[in-house]
Formats: sequence, C-alpha cells, structure tokens
Amino acid sequence: MGKERDGSGQDRPTTSLNPSAEFPPLSAQDIEALRRLGRHWRTEESVRALPVDPELRPAGPGAAHARGPNEEFRPDQPGELTTTPAAEQPDTPLGRLALRVRRVLLGPPLTSASVLRERMRKLIALPILSSDLLSSVAYGPEAMLTILVLAGTAGLGLSLPIAGALVVLMLAVGVSYRQTVRAYPHGAGSYLVASDAIGPRTGLTAAVGLILDYVLTVSVSVAAGIAAITSALPALAPLAVPMSLLVIAALLIGNLRGIRAAGNIFAAPTYLFLLAIGGMTLVGLAQAAARGFTVVPTPPVPATEALTVLIIARAFASGATSMTGIEAVSNAVPALRPVEWRNARTVLTWMVSLLILLFAGLVLLIHLNGLIPRASETLLSQLAHRIFPHGPWYAIIQAATALVLLLAANTAYNDLPRLLYFMARDAYVPRRFLHMGDRLALSNGLVALSIAAAVILTAFGGRTQSLIPLFAVGVFLAFTLSQVGMVNHWRRHRESGWRRRAAINAFGATLSAIVLVTAAITKFTSGAWVVVVAVPSLVILCLRIRRHYDRVRQAVALRPAPTQLPSEPESERDMAREFLPQRVRHLLVVPVARFDQATLRALAYVMSLGQPSLAVHVSPEDQEADRIRDEWRAWGDHIRLETVVSPHREILEPLAQYIAQLHDKSPDITLTVVIPEVVVDRPWQRLLHSRIEHRLRKALRRLPGVVITSMPIHLSEAAAQTAR
Amino acid sequence: MGKERDGSGQDRPTTSLNPSAEFPPLSAQDIEALRRLGRHWRTEESVRALPVDPELRPAGPGAAHARGPNEEFRPDQPGELTTTPAAEQPDTPLGRLALRVRRVLLGPPLTSASVLRERMRKLIALPILSSDLLSSVAYGPEAMLTILVLAGTAGLGLSLPIAGALVVLMLAVGVSYRQTVRAYPHGAGSYLVASDAIGPRTGLTAAVGLILDYVLTVSVSVAAGIAAITSALPALAPLAVPMSLLVIAALLIGNLRGIRAAGNIFAAPTYLFLLAIGGMTLVGLAQAAARGFTVVPTPPVPATEALTVLIIARAFASGATSMTGIEAVSNAVPALRPVEWRNARTVLTWMVSLLILLFAGLVLLIHLNGLIPRASETLLSQLAHRIFPHGPWYAIIQAATALVLLLAANTAYNDLPRLLYFMARDAYVPRRFLHMGDRLALSNGLVALSIAAAVILTAFGGRTQSLIPLFAVGVFLAFTLSQVGMVNHWRRHRESGWRRRAAINAFGATLSAIVLVTAAITKFTSGAWVVVVAVPSLVILCLRIRRHYDRVRQAVALRPAPTQLPSEPESERDMAREFLPQRVRHLLVVPVARFDQATLRALAYVMSLGQPSLAVHVSPEDQEADRIRDEWRAWGDHIRLETVVSPHREILEPLAQYIAQLHDKSPDITLTVVIPEVVVDRPWQRLLHSRIEHRLRKALRRLPGVVITSMPIHLSEAAAQTAR
Repeated sequence: MGKERDGSGQDRPTTSLNPSAEFPPLSAQDIEALRRLGRHWRTEESVRALPVDPELRPAGPGAAHARGPNEEFRPDQPGELTTTPAAEQPDTPLGRLALRVRRVLLGPPLTSASVLRERMRKLIALPILSSDLLSSVAYGPEAMLTILVLAGTAGLGLSLPIAGALVVLMLAVGVSYRQTVRAYPHGAGSYLVASDAIGPRTGLTAAVGLILDYVLTVSVSVAAGIAAITSALPALAPLAVPMSLLVIAALLIGNLRGIRAAGNIFAAPTYLFLLAIGGMTLVGLAQAAARGFTVVPTPPVPATEALTVLIIARAFASGATSMTGIEAVSNAVPALRPVEWRNARTVLTWMVSLLILLFAGLVLLIHLNGLIPRASETLLSQLAHRIFPHGPWYAIIQAATALVLLLAANTAYNDLPRLLYFMARDAYVPRRFLHMGDRLALSNGLVALSIAAAVILTAFGGRTQSLIPLFAVGVFLAFTLSQVGMVNHWRRHRESGWRRRAAINAFGATLSAIVLVTAAITKFTSGAWVVVVAVPSLVILCLRIRRHYDRVRQAVALRPAPTQLPSEPESERDMAREFLPQRVRHLLVVPVARFDQATLRALAYVMSLGQPSLAVHVSPEDQEADRIRDEWRAWGDHIRLETVVSPHREILEPLAQYIAQLHDKSPDITLTVVIPEVVVDRPWQRLLHSRIEHRLRKALRRLPGVVITSMPIHLSEAAAQTAR
Repeated sequence: MGKERDGSGQDRPTTSLNPSAEFPPLSAQDIEALRRLGRHWRTEESVRALPVDPELRPAGPGAAHARGPNEEFRPDQPGELTTTPAAEQPDTPLGRLALRVRRVLLGPPLTSASVLRERMRKLIALPILSSDLLSSVAYGPEAMLTILVLAGTAGLGLSLPIAGALVVLMLAVGVSYRQTVRAYPHGAGSYLVASDAIGPRTGLTAAVGLILDYVLTVSVSVAAGIAAITSALPALAPLAVPMSLLVIAALLIGNLRGIRAAGNIFAAPTYLFLLAIGGMTLVGLAQAAARGFTVVPTPPVPATEALTVLIIARAFASGATSMTGIEAVSNAVPALRPVEWRNARTVLTWMVSLLILLFAGLVLLIHLNGLIPRASETLLSQLAHRIFPHGPWYAIIQAATALVLLLAANTAYNDLPRLLYFMARDAYVPRRFLHMGDRLALSNGLVALSIAAAVILTAFGGRTQSLIPLFAVGVFLAFTLSQVGMVNHWRRHRESGWRRRAAINAFGATLSAIVLVTAAITKFTSGAWVVVVAVPSLVILCLRIRRHYDRVRQAVALRPAPTQLPSEPESERDMAREFLPQRVRHLLVVPVARFDQATLRALAYVMSLGQPSLAVHVSPEDQEADRIRDEWRAWGDHIRLETVVSPHREILEPLAQYIAQLHDKSPDITLTVVIPEVVVDRPWQRLLHSRIEHRLRKALRRLPGVVITSMPIHLSEAAAQTAR
C-alpha cells in the first residue's frame, strides 16, 4: 500500500488512496544513504539525557495537574503514543466552538484504519457515480434535435440514425472503459492512463480537461436545478444566486461527511429519476405499441440551413453531451470495495446499459410522438405532458429531473478530489490535496471545487447556460486521450488478444475525437475558445508547480541528484560533513533595544547555551549608545555588546544588514538571532507594539544560514510571576 | 535632555522632543538593581570567544567580498559602529525603488544631531503657527453677525459691543497663554499643563478635545479651500474629493520633509493673506475717514427671534470661533529655536495682536459700511467689493483667503504630531508616535492625521461644513482646562505676583467656559453631541492603552512593582534566580515530518548545542509510525524519537498539545521548538507549502516558556550547495 519512487524521483501511480500519502516513505537507496551518513554523526551524552519523560507518564500519585497526563495521549508501545480525541481539542474557546459545529455538521472523526470500511458498495456507487451521466439524458436528445431542426423536417428525419450512431459511440466508449478498468485496476482515470501510456504532459492535458469539466458541471448543473425551481416559483428568482450557493454548501458538507455518508444522502434522488424516466419510457412505448407504432408526423418546419455534413456532425456532437459523466467510474475505482476493478466494471456496465436504454427510449418516443424542440418547453416536459396528460406523474417527472440535475454536481464532488489527489501525488498540484480530513474525505479538494464553482456561479450571476459548450470540449478531450493511451498500452504490453482490444479502444478514440473536434470548432466562438486557452495555460501552471516541488525535493534530498552521479562518493562525504553536529559552529546574536526583563531573559537563554554570543544595539544617537554601554557595564558586561549608531534613526535595516555582514564574513558559521517578542492578549493591542520583531524576522529570512529564534514574553505569565 | 521616570513609573513631562525618546534610559535605582542582579550571573568563557569580528574589520587585503566591510558600517570607537547611508538601503529592488521615491519627495535624511538646526525661527513660526488662527478671521465675524441678524436691526446694533467683549476674551486668553508659556517653558500645551496642574485625566480630556479639533480643522479647512476653488471653476466640482485628498497628500509630504522645509514652503501664503486683509482694512478705514466716519445704515431687517440673552450668548460663542488656533504656539514651544519660551511668547504676542487688529478692523468696517450677512456672498467678499469696486484687488483678496483656508490645516500638521508625541511619552497613545522619521519629523503622527482627515473628508463627500460646530467645542474645552490648570499652578507654587496671574487665568478660564457651555448647548443637536460622546470614549481608550503599557512595563520591569516593596529583597533574589544563565535548563524539541536534509540540518543544529533534545513525529497511521522508526534506526538513532499516532490525521493540534504537556510536566524547563521552514522565492509558491510551520508557531506562542526557533531552508542556497 506504499507509494514507490524510483531513482529518478518520478512517482509511479501504483496504489490507491492512502492516509499516509503526505508522508512518503524513503526508498531503499535513501535508507542506505541515511545509514552511511548517520555513521559520521557524533552525539554528546547530554543530548540523550532528557529532563522530562517524553512518554508523559504520571510522575506519581500526587501529580495532580490541570490536564491529566493520560487524558490526551495514551501510551502505545515504547516510543509511541496515540492521541485521544481530547488532544484534538483546540486551546481557544473559539477553536473549540468551531470544532463542535464541525462535529455536528460532519459527524465524529474516523480513524485511518477505517479507510476500507468507508468504501462504496455497488448499489450506492451506481447512483453516486451515474447522477452526472443520467442527468445528461435530460438535455442530450434535445441538444441533438435543436441542431437537426435547423435543417427542417428533413433534418429531423435523421434523428434516429444519428441516435443510433451515438448508441454505438456509447457502447464503444463503455467497452473501452471496461478494458481500461481491467488494465489499470488501481485507478483508471484519463489522467493516470494517459500519463502512464503516453506521457505526463498528455496525462496533464486530460486531467486539466476533466478539472474544467468538473468545475463547470457543478456550476452549470446547480444553476440549472435552481432555475427549474425558480421557474416553478418565480417569487424566488431574485434569490437564485444565494440559493445556488446554499446548494453548493450543502453538497460540500454532505461530501465532507465522507464517501459513505454522502452516498447514503445523495443516492435516493437518482433512483427516483431512474424510476420516473424509466417508467415514462415504458408507458410511452406501451402507448405507442397500442397505436401500432404509428409515427405521429412532426409539424412542418422550414429549413433555415441546408442539411450538410456539418449539420450532421454538429447534431452528433451535441447529442454526445448525453455521455458526459461516463468517465466517473474510471476515476472512482479506488473508492469501491474490493475487488475494486471487478466492482467498477459491473457498475460501469449497469450505468452504460441504463444510459443506452434511457437515451434510445427517449429519442424513439420523441420521434414516435412527432415532438420538436420548442424554446418555451423542454422536450422532456412535452413528452411527459403527452404521455401523462393528467395525474401527478408529470409533476413527479419534472421534480425528479430538477433534483437529478442538482445532483449531477455530486459526481464531480466524488471524482475531482480524487483526481487532484493523484495529481498531488505526482506534485502537479499543491500537496495539500493529499490530505484526508478527519472523515477520510479529501477535504481540500472538496473545498477547492466548491470555491471555484461558487466563484464562477456568482461571476455569471447564476446564468451559466453559456458555459455548457465549454465542458463538452473538456470531457471529450479526456475521453480521447485516455483511449489513445489505451491503444498505446495494448501495443506496448502485447498480451493475448491485444489487437482486438486495441481496435476497440482505437474505434472509441476515433469517435470521441470526432466529437471533440466538431465541438471545439463549431462552438469555438461561443465559448469553446476559453477551453482552448485554459487547457494549455493550466498545463503550464501544473508543470511549473512540479518544477518547484522538484527543486524543493532536490534541495532536501538525502542523496544528490542523479545528474551528479559520477562524483557521488565525493559529494556525499561533502554533504555528510556539512550537517555533522560536531562540525556546526555557532554564533548567537541578541538584538537589544533596552534593558528590561525580556532582554535579561533572552541574554540568559543565549548564555546558558554556552556558545559564542553577541548582543547588538542600534541607537539613534551617540549619547544613547553611550548610555546603554554604561548600563551594560553596570550589569557586569557578561556578554560582548556591539552598538551601532544609526544617525538617521532607521533601526531595522542597519540591524538586518549588520547581521548579513556577520554572515558574509564567515558563511560557515550558523548565526542564531534571538528576538524577544511581547505576546499580547488581544488583537487590538498589537497596534500598540512596533512590528519590528516581525519585520526583522521577515528581513532575516532572506539570509541563508541564519536561524531565527523568538522568545515570547507573555504578559499574563510575567504578571503571574510578579504576583507569585 | 533625558526623560526622567520617578519611582512610581509615572513619566514627568520635563523635556522637549528627543530622537532617543523611544529608548528611555534607566533610572538610578534600575541601574542599581541591574548591578545587583548582574553579580549572580556566571558565564562560560566560550560565550565570549567570538568566531567573527563583531566590528567587521577587513580580514586582510585579499578579503574581497561583494560588500566591502566598511562600506556600510564605519568603526567609531571600540564596540561602536556608525551606519553609512548604504546600510539603510533595503535589500530588495522594490524596497530600493521605494527609498529612491522617498528621497526625491522628502529630501535626504537628517542626522539626529541636526535636531536643533531644524527648529523654526520666529519669522517662519509666525505664519506656520498662525495660519489656523488668522484664517478664522475670514469666517468669525460672519458667524457672529449671522446670529445677531436673527434679532433684526436691533440685534445688528449689538455687533460692536459683542466684538468688544470678544477682543477682551482674545486679550485674556492671549495674556493667559503668555503666562503659561513662561511657566511651562518646555511645552505649554493644554495637555501638559492640565496634566501637570490638575491631573492626568483632565490633561487627557484637553488633549482629546484638541485632537478632535485638529483632525476636524484639516478636513474642514481643506474642504472649504477646495470649495472656494470649485465655486470659481465649477467644472472642477465633481473632482472636489480627489482634489481635497491631493491637498492632504501635499500637506503630508510637505510636513514629512521636516519642520524647516515645511516652514519655507507654507509661510508665503499666510503673509500674502495678512497683507491683503491688512491692506483692505487700512484702505477701508481711510475711505471711512474721508466720509467722516459716517455709518451707512443697514437695510431694515425684520427680527425673526427676540433679542434675548441667549441670542447674545450665541453670537458671542459664534464670534469666538475667530480664536480657534490661538493655542498653536503653546504646543509648538519645543519646535522653536532657543530660548524657546521667550521666542514663543514673542510669536504669541505678534499673533494675538494681528488677530485683534484684523478682527476689530473687519467688524468695524462691516458696521461702517452697513453690510449684513447674505447667503449668496460672504461678508468678506461684500466688503472687498465695496472697498475695491474695480481693479485686481478683489480677486487677490479672494485668492489669498482661499489659500489661507487651505493652509489653516498646516497648523494642525505642525501641532498634532507633537501632542501625540507628548501623549506617547506618557503611554496614552501607541509608542510609535515617539519615532522621528529620517527627516526628523514625527512621521507617524503626520500620517495618522492625514489618514483620519482623509477618511472624514471622504465619508462626508467633501461637505464638511456641518462639522464646524464640532471643533469649537473641542478647542474651547482645551482652552478652559488649560487655564483652570494655570490657576491651580499659581495657587500651588505661590510665586511673587501669583494672585494677579491667577486672576488673569481665572478670567480667561471663565470667558472660555462661557463660550464652551454656550457652544455645547446651542449646537448640541447640530453635531456638538458627537464631541460630548467622543471625548469621554477617547479618554477611556487612552486610559486602556496606558493600562496595557503599564502591564507590559511591569512585566519586564527590572525591579518589582512598588506595591510589593515589603518583601523586596526576597522577591528580587527570586527574580535573579529566575534568569541566571547557569540555572536555565533546556529541552530542545524538533518536530520531524519526514527524513530529508532539512530535517537532518535541524537535528544537527539541535544536537550541536549539546543540550537534552527530543524529536517528535506525528503520524496518521501505525504503519507510518513504524516506518519512520525503522528509518530512524537506520540513521543511527542519534537522538530520542517519540512518535505520536493521530488516527484522525490531525497533525497540528496533537503536536502543540504534546509540547504543551511536556511544558506542563516541568514548567521550569525552557522548551525550544526548532521548526525547519522552507523559504520560497516567490509569493505564489507559498500556496504550495502547508502553512503548518506558521500555524504551529501561532499555537506555540500561546504557551509561556516555549521558545520557537525557525530554521529557514532556502531553495536557492540548497541548489547552490548541490551544484558546488
């Protein structure tokens, strides 16, 4: 269950989600390097003689402290303690209140050991992972027919053949993904597949496409769901944006509760939608059968455009939006119970079957009933009206549709954080996306998704329809790259039957690519250009993030980078020398402003360490410098004082530059600057103290090899001392 | 020239402005305490053996470093360096650019030694300190007549007697302030006088009244000056607020250049105004003499109110606004050249004489010419039109009036920072108001005044006329308290002639009090209530600030507070023991997240100090904890490692609480927590690193007795090392 790094530092995605991913283990070579390094270290005995028991064992029966020693930490084995929930209690009242609110909203924390128990079973995974896909059925057929109707009645006549082609595409992509899940049993998302089978940049391109898709899916589907509500209750229309933000907050909280809890909350509406649309399709087919499958002729529609190949391609691409969400399972493999890939394949089969049944059924019914797209009413609504002229069924179908549109966002909540986790493991996004929250959810990804979606939704004032063309491009980009990757994968491994498998994936890739290119070209001016610009920009950003992390990793690596291998033994010894404790030479520096107990405490601290020490005072006037030297002599001149007269009364810069010059003179000496710092009780009191300590710390941080120590002086503590 | 603290810690205002005021010297008792404490300190020889020359002397002729050792610091005497301007150069390009802009705007920095040379001579002090007072003449007579005209012609008949009474008030206050300046030769402002002669709360009340006055003066007079410009050029009206802010910025920059530079800039307009109004008065009187001093009868005005004592009192109080600004000299005594009090008295005499001449002359001319207040045109404008029916004189008088109204603000810029300086010395306002900028101006006070005035001006959209009633109340509050204080002063000291002097001050106090009460009552509903609310609130705020500083001072005092005197020798020995370097017991704690060079460097740093040390690792899983212990053993287990398993994956709180418990178990041990911290090159990269170091530092700051050391790890440095 560990992540492996090979020698080049490249991470190979071979594992599923892991609470320890933030703490990658060392490779065998690293441990060997550590062992060699460690041999040179010398420690004085005094370092190991601890004045306190690090295991916090009670000192005796009479040791009555405010906090019992075992209330928060429970001994586990020698050298190991385990926290109890009390150790997670923040110290401040505000922090404790926040924690209590959090517990009420999200439930009690889950231990890392229950990560397996938190996985989804198939009957929960199906609705969670398919809500995005199935909700697409509510608008996919309409999107297709809206294009065809431009070519008039002749165009509408093509609806069944194009729908047939789409079903073929769905089958191809579905089978393709089944193969992918089998081939990448630990996570079969486009990012992992394309990275592994083609290359990291291709994988990143697919990932960025999916990220855009997920963020847009949340804003668009939440806005659409709220629009369905406000068109039923127009009085709520001015509240559309706040209501949408509330829905996003609810989705966030639900998902922060963890995969299992979110599944239980969000599963029912999808089943309701399935029942409603499935029922309608059956009843509609039964009615058609009763009519002997006679086709109601469509009302004559004048053609506004010629029936060209372009129109057909556009209709095909638009209808393909019914498939957005089909990739959900591939990213979610690690969230399923074992055997993950087998369960994932089953769920995928169910999902694609349901998709094809619903899509084909709806297109057929629309054709049989001679319905055409109208601006005032959706086709689904027309169909429901036609099939259920009275009774509550129409209302139920509409409500279930609105609900599932809202929940389509939930698939994104399920998938995006996991995608970010995989990307963070490869250091393409901030590493904090590796962190599993106290409910074992990938909290940072959930929060980032919510913020991004909320910002987009607010920026567009809740009118996000214009964003719909954008996300089809992103999602088909991912489909195409993933399947091209699979073709590569088969060619590389050449297992038995690889030609057949590669052919299936190549067919899926070709169809997906057609949709991608058509969508990108035909919708370029109406928004797809944003994707065309955003994808490369985000890929470059990810690469820069990776470069930064690589620099950090090399900077702190235990072994030199492989490029320097020729001289390895030499440079390794250099490094060992650099950090040997017995070779560190110290100079402690105390900036002194005036003589008071805070200063005395800092001086005592420094002197007690027994290392070479120096006090520095920056003075605005000669007289003042003389005065402090007199005081210094009165005290006994126990440590060397250097005064710096700054006739222009600037304190900070001369101090920082003096320390910089000390460092310049002997760069091999470790300078430790000890800064006494008053800690105030209340924020407003900070205004009463100069921020010079803070500014000095900032200025000194720029200097390499300078260590900064702050000695907090607490008012309450000092007051308690004088009161003692 | 030093500030003296008596034993109770009460500051006595006995001195003038001092660049070292931020570094108060120790009292003789404090030095004695320090001497006694110092005898117990023991230092190891190693502490004084410095590995670097603290005087930064060049190591040899071949020591060629980027920065020459004497470029920024010049040796002065043993143990003392003096900075050169190069040492004030910030390290960053942005900082250097800011410094260059600053130099262009404000001029080169001035050394602390030139503080005396920066003082004002009398001919500069007169216009600088009187612009506020003399500009009041432009509206004072009008304010008086506007009230009298309510009682019709009969009311207007009283203008000369009331003006006579006002002249008496001016004389009384003027003589009163002359006495004050003599009695308090180091600074005679209402705050200092009332604090010393009555009590600190009374002094604060006077100070707060003046602060309100000054801030309002700036916003009102700048807005009035800009209004004069925009009424002449209506096209500029929409830009009134930005133009006002520009004027405030110009006043700020001019005054940041230092007292002398500001004097040279801002003196001319006041002299122009004096010449213009003085000339008009002379010409007007000559014309009247030519007419044989016949009075032009006023047009008949119907009375809208009866001529009651209230009307007379209101007219008196309104006319008294001509006197606002008379206090300027008393606050500015320390800004004059020596002998300060004598020069101040001369300037005061000149100012009051000019005030009385202009005020009496204008009222007389208005009476002789039978002018009455009109809403459409100011009385000054009517008078100028009457006296100079043609020629450029009218325009010159109007322009000079607008200019001096703008410059009235400059008196506040001169006085308020000094008032804040005196208050900061007594710890009633933030101590940063003690700081003299690189041009020896009290920069923080200037900036604070500009911000406050700009905020008020913007909040009122430039329409600040409604604020006029407010500041009369504040300023007469200060007059009254200052003069009551002087009465007390004479009674207390009983020098020869004290009865006469006390009588003069008492008379001035009585008249001022009448104006104060009348203004506060009659203008209560039109805004004076704000002052009535604001003054006590601000006084309470000042007292709370003082209490905070007192707590800080007691917390860091070298000797225990006098309340604990009974047991002094005992508690002093306790304290000495507390901070003796030979008694400090250390435990160094290194939080370890993973094994890398940053960790190794922190471990080497800690171990090289030779003090008891402990490493702590917080782990989300048992397996992970086992893994790090294996790595630890591979390295050689040079320092004790304690692992804490936090099954809910919370890192920060368990770590902070573990350290807190170590501290609880042995509160007498000084815990030093060493936190390795990656320092990134660019701000955006901060997002890529968890803020856990920062949050840990914040959490640990709450614990008393815990010292926090951050070891910055620089990417560039580390990269340079591997490249070596």
